[in-house]
Amino acid sequence: MTDSSIVENLVHWISKSIEIPVGLEDALLSISVSKQLKKGDLILKSGEMVKKTYFIIDGCLRSYLTDQAGKEHTIQFATENWWISDFRAYFSKKAASLNIECIANAHVIEMNWSDLDWIYKRFPTIETFQKGNLEKHLISLNTRIQSQLELGAEERYLKFILDYPKIAEYAQNKHIASYLGISPQSLSRLKSNLE
Amino acid sequence: MTDSSIVENLVHWISKSIEIPVGLEDALLSISVSKQLKKGDLILKSGEMVKKTYFIIDGCLRSYLTDQAGKEHTIQFATENWWISDFRAYFSKKAASLNIECIANAHVIEMNWSDLDWIYKRFPTIETFQKGNLEKHLISLNTRIQSQLELGAEERYLKFILDYPKIAEYAQNKHIASYLGISPQSLSRLKSNLE
Repeated sequence: MTDSSIVENLVHWISKSIEIPVGLEDALLSISVSKQLKKGDLILKSGEMVKKTYFIIDGCLRSYLTDQAGKEHTIQFATENWWISDFRAYFSKKAASLNIECIANAHVIEMNWSDLDWIYKRFPTIETFQKGNLEKHLISLNTRIQSQLELGAEERYLKFILDYPKIAEYAQNKHIASYLGISPQSLSRLKSNLE
Repeated sequence: MTDSSIVENLVHWISKSIEIPVGLEDALLSISVSKQLKKGDLILKSGEMVKKTYFIIDGCLRSYLTDQAGKEHTIQFATENWWISDFRAYFSKKAASLNIECIANAHVIEMNWSDLDWIYKRFPTIETFQKGNLEKHLISLNTRIQSQLELGAEERYLKFILDYPKIAEYAQNKHIASYLGISPQSLSRLKSNLE
């Protein structure tokens, strides 16, 4: 696949929300790098400055943090038409606290945040579009916080596979458990009880 | 305090981030309603459509959800220069799942979301400003999710009083406990251990 054809995917996805301004496709093409990632590839390490963001064409990535005891906690999964980065670190101009790894061979568009900011300035409607994306991100984070407070482990798991069936396919048991905030053993027990 | 002087507070706060466009202050004044709230006032109830958002001049509000067992979970506290609403419900065009109550006598600016959208369209730089606010909101939600996964109850409480000293003053023990996801008894024990 050429860069031009993968940017078409991104433009097609944007066109579902706003009318594509003249020149946007060329501008996106000029800042996009097409990358093939393999399962296990680490594209961001905790402690690094966050310079890039990724739009997923296919495959699956996850971001996670490692606590002081060495335990991993999954923060986000990203599959087709999702973005992944360490958003908190980038927006607060701090070094990454997250790692990002590929968990199923993936095809992504890599962009520099600084280039994306240039796009926002040049095409103000994209900023409106990006505001919409931030609102969607906010919905998903709020939903996660509310589920964690309100629902038991089984209900959280059932909601997860209902909301994200594709991710449930790609991700390993231990990744899903660490996203739901339960142990892999509890998740296995819970799944066998449901069968 | 007149409406005009409270809108000055809001404009002053906005002016820390962007240059105030000509006409913005009058436009904000035309959509703002100054409200004095008393401790215990409920300004949004779960199940209602979310039509309004609130900018806090002083005092303190909290949003919370009540689970099926009747237990309350605090989702957000808001004090001076913060906004509060059921953002998830508004952005996803659903009925409120949260309640919002005043927990310390407060002075707020009430705005209709639809009027605020009109402001965004009329003053594009405000949209940039609002995108910045969404990014900050995203940082705080991510921080909360990461703390919940990574830190123990005591560390979460210490981080809370460090990050939000004003809220720790206003909020009752049970509200803070329900924000941290622990029982009021655990919080009391934890606080007396720290003394």
